[in-house]
Amino acid sequence: MTPDADADLFAVIHRQRAARSFSSEPVPDEALARVLDAATFAPSAENRQPWEFVVVRDEDARQQLGDVMQRAWAGGGKDFAAARISAGMLADVDRGMTGGVAGAPVLLVVAADTERGLEETVPSSIFPAVQNLLLAATALGLGSALTTLATVFAAEVRALTGLPDHVQPVALIPLGYPARPLGPPRREPFSAHTHRGRYGEAW
Amino acid sequence: MTPDADADLFAVIHRQRAARSFSSEPVPDEALARVLDAATFAPSAENRQPWEFVVVRDEDARQQLGDVMQRAWAGGGKDFAAARISAGMLADVDRGMTGGVAGAPVLLVVAADTERGLEETVPSSIFPAVQNLLLAATALGLGSALTTLATVFAAEVRALTGLPDHVQPVALIPLGYPARPLGPPRREPFSAHTHRGRYGEAW
Repeated sequence: MTPDADADLFAVIHRQRAARSFSSEPVPDEALARVLDAATFAPSAENRQPWEFVVVRDEDARQQLGDVMQRAWAGGGKDFAAARISAGMLADVDRGMTGGVAGAPVLLVVAADTERGLEETVPSSIFPAVQNLLLAATALGLGSALTTLATVFAAEVRALTGLPDHVQPVALIPLGYPARPLGPPRREPFSAHTHRGRYGEAW
Repeated sequence: MTPDADADLFAVIHRQRAARSFSSEPVPDEALARVLDAATFAPSAENRQPWEFVVVRDEDARQQLGDVMQRAWAGGGKDFAAARISAGMLADVDRGMTGGVAGAPVLLVVAADTERGLEETVPSSIFPAVQNLLLAATALGLGSALTTLATVFAAEVRALTGLPDHVQPVALIPLGYPARPLGPPRREPFSAHTHRGRYGEAW
């Protein structure tokens, strides 16, 4: 496990990026606990904290979740387009990644309890928690990736993880130690997308 | 400006919470730059980085944006319910807050360019950036709050900030130095919402 020496917020933010391949080194419960605890400190609509997390370590279950994602991508045509468009896959989450999701020692299903929260506020209440989670993982040396195919294939994800109807899967996040070092993320400078006072006025 | 001494990721995550009232101390461009830069290092669907930021410092413009939110809350009945339900207001963002939004020296409109991104992936591409932004603000000693009423009153926000049709407002974030110290956020323990393997299995 990596200690917190490199846990400076700005440094962590600048090195966070999606991991595609993972070593088989197990992720200790203690690390998962810190990552999940971090998630719960995000803001949520009316502080309803609608998040639910399912930690999947079982190899068969991981393989089945990986297969769901693989089928989505392999399906091509309408399925592929629908998954691609609706799912919010990340740049780094390509076919190789979806095949490789099951290779991470932990798959984390992030879901929203729509009885505890409000369905309309699920995105604004869940994705900040997801981001806290990804940053905490990065700080602890864990690789991770945000995938949202779970939303599109909710029925399969529900069946595999036992989520009841009122708990809506939002994201599927592989977690594990990266198989190889991750390079820096590529971003356009903020100033290219920042406007002073009104849209179109240069920063 | 607060130095980065307290910028440990986990410490920042544990103290981030919504600010309701702000001092009149101006927010330097340098601090805004760090906050916006942090936002752009969040993941986004296909790394499309669809975010756009409008930094509103002008007092009249801030007042008008504050009035939009105030009207929403003061409207009561259908308007109030619609705003409340659709808007994803935070627990800490109550009537006092919406009145006080204009009191922050900076209002930040966070929007998504739906030509650069995909409309379906706006939430998963924007709220992680918003969370980076809120954490960076916290690390720099700035108070902030996530409000999403801007989504409901998109037409007014567009008119006030000049956003074109393809740029969709997602969040309105007041930024400034807090008028008084913020207490710790209140959260349920993660273990109450974490399941091992399948929903319902205790962590």
